[in-house]
Amino acid sequence: MTIVYIAIACGVLAVLYGLLTSQQVLKAPAGNEKMQSIAAAIQEGAKAYLGRQYMTIAVVGVIVAIVLFFTLGTLSTIGFLVGAVLSGVAGFVGMNISVRANVRTAEAARTSLQGGLTLAFRSGAITGMLVAGLGLLAIAVLFWYLIGPFGLAPNSRKVIEALTALAFGASLISIFARLGGGIFTKAADVGADLVGKVEAGIPEDDPRNPAVIADNVGDNVGDCAGMAADLFETYVVTLGLTMVSIALLVKNLSDELLLKLMSLPLIVGGVCIITSIIGTYMVRLGKSQSIMGALYKGFWTTAILSVPAIWFVTQYALGDMNAPIGGLSIDPSSFLEPSDQVTAEAVRGLASGAQFTGWSLFICMMIGLAVTGLLVWITEYYTGTNYRPVKSIAKASVTGHGTNVIQGLAISLESTALPTLVIVVAVIAAYQIAGIIGVAFAATSLLALAGMVVALDAYGPVTDNAGGIAEMAGLEDEVRHKTDALDAVGNTTKAVTKGYAIGSAALAALVLFGAYTTDLKEFFPDVPVDFSLNNPYVIVGLLLGALLPYLFGAFGMTAVGRAAGSVVEDVRQQFAADKGIMAGTSRPNYARTVDIVTKAAIKEMIVPSLLPVLSPIAIYFIITAVAGQSQGFAAVGAMLLGVIVSGLFVAISMTSGGGAWDNAKKYIEDGNYGGKGSEAHKAAVTGDTVGDPYKDTAGPAVNPMIKITNIVALLLLAALAGHAAG
Amino acid sequence: MTIVYIAIACGVLAVLYGLLTSQQVLKAPAGNEKMQSIAAAIQEGAKAYLGRQYMTIAVVGVIVAIVLFFTLGTLSTIGFLVGAVLSGVAGFVGMNISVRANVRTAEAARTSLQGGLTLAFRSGAITGMLVAGLGLLAIAVLFWYLIGPFGLAPNSRKVIEALTALAFGASLISIFARLGGGIFTKAADVGADLVGKVEAGIPEDDPRNPAVIADNVGDNVGDCAGMAADLFETYVVTLGLTMVSIALLVKNLSDELLLKLMSLPLIVGGVCIITSIIGTYMVRLGKSQSIMGALYKGFWTTAILSVPAIWFVTQYALGDMNAPIGGLSIDPSSFLEPSDQVTAEAVRGLASGAQFTGWSLFICMMIGLAVTGLLVWITEYYTGTNYRPVKSIAKASVTGHGTNVIQGLAISLESTALPTLVIVVAVIAAYQIAGIIGVAFAATSLLALAGMVVALDAYGPVTDNAGGIAEMAGLEDEVRHKTDALDAVGNTTKAVTKGYAIGSAALAALVLFGAYTTDLKEFFPDVPVDFSLNNPYVIVGLLLGALLPYLFGAFGMTAVGRAAGSVVEDVRQQFAADKGIMAGTSRPNYARTVDIVTKAAIKEMIVPSLLPVLSPIAIYFIITAVAGQSQGFAAVGAMLLGVIVSGLFVAISMTSGGGAWDNAKKYIEDGNYGGKGSEAHKAAVTGDTVGDPYKDTAGPAVNPMIKITNIVALLLLAALAGHAAG
Repeated sequence: MTIVYIAIACGVLAVLYGLLTSQQVLKAPAGNEKMQSIAAAIQEGAKAYLGRQYMTIAVVGVIVAIVLFFTLGTLSTIGFLVGAVLSGVAGFVGMNISVRANVRTAEAARTSLQGGLTLAFRSGAITGMLVAGLGLLAIAVLFWYLIGPFGLAPNSRKVIEALTALAFGASLISIFARLGGGIFTKAADVGADLVGKVEAGIPEDDPRNPAVIADNVGDNVGDCAGMAADLFETYVVTLGLTMVSIALLVKNLSDELLLKLMSLPLIVGGVCIITSIIGTYMVRLGKSQSIMGALYKGFWTTAILSVPAIWFVTQYALGDMNAPIGGLSIDPSSFLEPSDQVTAEAVRGLASGAQFTGWSLFICMMIGLAVTGLLVWITEYYTGTNYRPVKSIAKASVTGHGTNVIQGLAISLESTALPTLVIVVAVIAAYQIAGIIGVAFAATSLLALAGMVVALDAYGPVTDNAGGIAEMAGLEDEVRHKTDALDAVGNTTKAVTKGYAIGSAALAALVLFGAYTTDLKEFFPDVPVDFSLNNPYVIVGLLLGALLPYLFGAFGMTAVGRAAGSVVEDVRQQFAADKGIMAGTSRPNYARTVDIVTKAAIKEMIVPSLLPVLSPIAIYFIITAVAGQSQGFAAVGAMLLGVIVSGLFVAISMTSGGGAWDNAKKYIEDGNYGGKGSEAHKAAVTGDTVGDPYKDTAGPAVNPMIKITNIVALLLLAALAGHAAG
Repeated sequence: MTIVYIAIACGVLAVLYGLLTSQQVLKAPAGNEKMQSIAAAIQEGAKAYLGRQYMTIAVVGVIVAIVLFFTLGTLSTIGFLVGAVLSGVAGFVGMNISVRANVRTAEAARTSLQGGLTLAFRSGAITGMLVAGLGLLAIAVLFWYLIGPFGLAPNSRKVIEALTALAFGASLISIFARLGGGIFTKAADVGADLVGKVEAGIPEDDPRNPAVIADNVGDNVGDCAGMAADLFETYVVTLGLTMVSIALLVKNLSDELLLKLMSLPLIVGGVCIITSIIGTYMVRLGKSQSIMGALYKGFWTTAILSVPAIWFVTQYALGDMNAPIGGLSIDPSSFLEPSDQVTAEAVRGLASGAQFTGWSLFICMMIGLAVTGLLVWITEYYTGTNYRPVKSIAKASVTGHGTNVIQGLAISLESTALPTLVIVVAVIAAYQIAGIIGVAFAATSLLALAGMVVALDAYGPVTDNAGGIAEMAGLEDEVRHKTDALDAVGNTTKAVTKGYAIGSAALAALVLFGAYTTDLKEFFPDVPVDFSLNNPYVIVGLLLGALLPYLFGAFGMTAVGRAAGSVVEDVRQQFAADKGIMAGTSRPNYARTVDIVTKAAIKEMIVPSLLPVLSPIAIYFIITAVAGQSQGFAAVGAMLLGVIVSGLFVAISMTSGGGAWDNAKKYIEDGNYGGKGSEAHKAAVTGDTVGDPYKDTAGPAVNPMIKITNIVALLLLAALAGHAAG
């Protein structure tokens, strides 16, 4: 139990870091009156949107909570509510800091680049630490309560169900927040660009554009609050399901060793919060004044310090690193056909790998860290301005809009290859070392760095807003140059987080599926389910699962198009009704545009968000009606893998492709291929517009979508079992 | 054996139809001298390209044949060569007719719309009947020879291997032809547009553009020869593998009944050639002068006549339609875990569906026809100018290039949903009725209409060329209007064929996987292979398989971009070197541009074409080295499904999306949203350019890619078994 207390202490430390750093950020000067009034408008809009969004989610959440209460009982409902509320809190607090740090970053950038960087990054680090800290606290406190005061066994059904429900709460908020925020930010961005840059011929962030505040609000509600909810979900799901899979799969352990093993993910998460906090203090510009270099210093410090730290806590938790820990409940005879039993010996070697030690878990966690590093590097290669992919898109812009988009699509397709290979190699290696539990621990250490990764990401919207405020407040060009430089690396760090989240989902897929099949055997021992690829219902499930990310992507893209259209109409009306706006003599009605985008985003987020919630349930009942319950379970199980097999590619291609388009535009704006205003630049703006909903709406929302589908399937099993029992 | 003779007779009939109709087409007047000289240039370019392409493929083919000879023996090598050569012949003859019909269609359109339609469609029908006829002859004659003069049993290993090798030969040619032709046509098209329309400001098909002949050559080598090779492959693979799966899976049949059952796909193919020929005579303009309506008349006549025709031949072949035909070798105990054996009874109902009758096969074939009809209807919905999808893209063009592309991508993602649902329902229904054999027969009847479907498709490039010739030869505007009207429906019929081919691949996936697992059991009875989704190597295989279409798509798109770039440079050089070209006083060097595109296309097609050939082999050896042979087989098996699960979506989204973009442009050109020359039109041209490599290069080549991966895996098993035995 000491281990759980230590983890809780680390969670509290992260929250304290957040509070103290908030004080520092808020103490920084907030600029002149004009800057403050702009910042106030952004704050107001962001709060109004988030309030409305949470109200809407609350309605869905309450309905789900009631359903859970009557199907799975009180503990699951509590777990669900804790996950949902804390996910909301992480997003809300992060956004609140972000909308205050933006203007302070602009002000700090008037003095020095380092000043702006420090302020923006500190603000991102607050969100990062809150995401990791609150995520860790949610799991650790719930786990402590259930096995301590409540007196349950660590691997009891109730604990498993409560942890799953916690993950569900986090996921449900996350899909709404990611999608709603994503639609808001891109509808405002695309709408503002279309009617401002293209129609009216005024620059980006020009205060005469009525959509300009909505655009800046969008950065905060989408890239900050939505992203934070997403990563909170990923953190909770990964750590929680590692614990669940230990409870479900590892048999024959002493009570003491079981508790230690189940607490290990918590303390790994805890210690990596400490290394992340240390890392944040290393973000400093070197002699080369490279901003990416400064951020990397922080990231690599965290990653390298995490190696001994993880070694230390693993040894602390498990004691002897070489002592074999139990064994998995895998028996080769269980997946061999009866006729093959004679040769079952041939594969016993595979199962013996499932007999793991502290050492093997440590190595699996090192694999997780290596995957993090490689995904960061690959994402930078595909979205950074120094490498072939972005340069090739910039070059293709010279021959026009069409070739820019063709090359961008080619890069987006290509960018899926290396991450897939990295994940495949990691799965094989971790599995060979410690079976499914090894894969789960690789995913855990991957996510343990979430605090640092989110910090890098949440820094982006702050600098983006700072640039907007500098422009609107008419600050010196030099300030805008500094904020632009800060913002450019934001495109890459944003893409990194998305690749990281989806990569963890792919790694977790095997664990989630393992939980599904184990649950199935436990709940329905009498229903024979055939998960072999020979079973046509498995193919049907794979195809239907693979369809979900496509359909979801289509909804997301259409929603942005439609919502952007309403922005364009509103702005046109404002321009027509008051000629003074364009002349700069009257103030446009920013709030009205914010309000329109808010309504549109909330309306558009509902149907696609319910798609992954309802699909597994619908498919279970339809296939069960057609071909019986055993095929219903087979189809739903296959669907869980179908959704990750296709979702991984859809998400990576969209997020990397979108980032590459964005930076290809920036590369041209840096003076290549004719620079700003050239034909190549116009083509690059088209690519950037296309990439916007790709990378910020549809692509990142695929990650929570995959998790929701999986978790709903797990809860469905529990509910059906309860129904069958009751 | 009579059944086989009848099938051969139907194949001969199709070839005779082709010969006679060729005579008719060639007898039509070929227009004035200028038209003839343009047509001659196109002919020359097409022949030069196809000659070079076949030379290159021949080199690969000879190497593969030598490998096959030493691993699988003479019969397989002969099968391979027959498949390869006939695939080449189908493409070559089709293209030869097409390059002669184009100028005659332009000439006929001077008189009447009906005249142009008749000529263009007849020419398409020649290609269609040759594809179906040669395909049927290839399988039927090879089968006849092996079981007749050669004296093998219909289900002997040698027959199975020879039929598989036949399919491999067809597939290998097909992927090169589809991809090479696809790169050629789109590189020329995009290149010509960029440098002509965009830079020089001259209209499409303007004779001053040096790339204009290459563009017209491309229609013939890509949309005609490449498509014909693709559909020939699909036809041979589907019918051949239905026969192979009968030989592998259906046990306990009398020799007589086995022969009858294996010949059934042949006679179904044969009788549908007759209904297709009848259908071609029904293509006539009605009072409404609707061209799509005229083509539909032909299609629906064929589809409706095929119902009684298939009934008739099924009864003829099998005799009593209600007599149970053998049983599948499926035993529920083979896929249940030992612990579940007690409840094995629960799923015996499923296996009993595998006890099928003539009636059940007939119903499965009706399902295949229904799928064809539904896929045609869905494709028309997503690519026709009368429906929401295309209109929404056209509307989005008003707000610019970016929103056009966003909406197009949204539609392309969305367009995968209905075809997937249709295929899923068809798989479930056919499987419930007659097990895997039922699914195979559904795929067979789907492909039996190939003659008609290819006719509708091959009509497209003829009208496209006719328009080009009319423009270049300076014919009256009225002629161009007629050829444009004929061409517009070509976009939809082209998309139909692609959706149809990939749909059949999805339907065949289960059959191919069934063949793989059966082969595995037969060749390696001592190697236990776990195809359950619990096995991480299955997940690894699924992910690597899913990656292939993405990587392949990336190669295809990049290749088009690069080759188009070389066209642009060549044309710029020609314009710069001789000012007389733009003035219209000197003739551009068309042949040089054709030559450049030829070289580029052939160079670019090789690496991506080898990707699906080498991937299963590489993955087998790597995974076997890491985790043993049984996991190597599991990973390759899962890869076969991964490639279809992801390929289905990649292919449909690309082909439907591309068709929708193209027709959105045409919709605007018809006078909507400002018509030709408006800003909306410019945006729509961008979308069309993006859609070009999507729909004509990367998308359609996914179909042969999927087949090749599967067939190589089958041959790999046979080769490994031979190696193990020898």
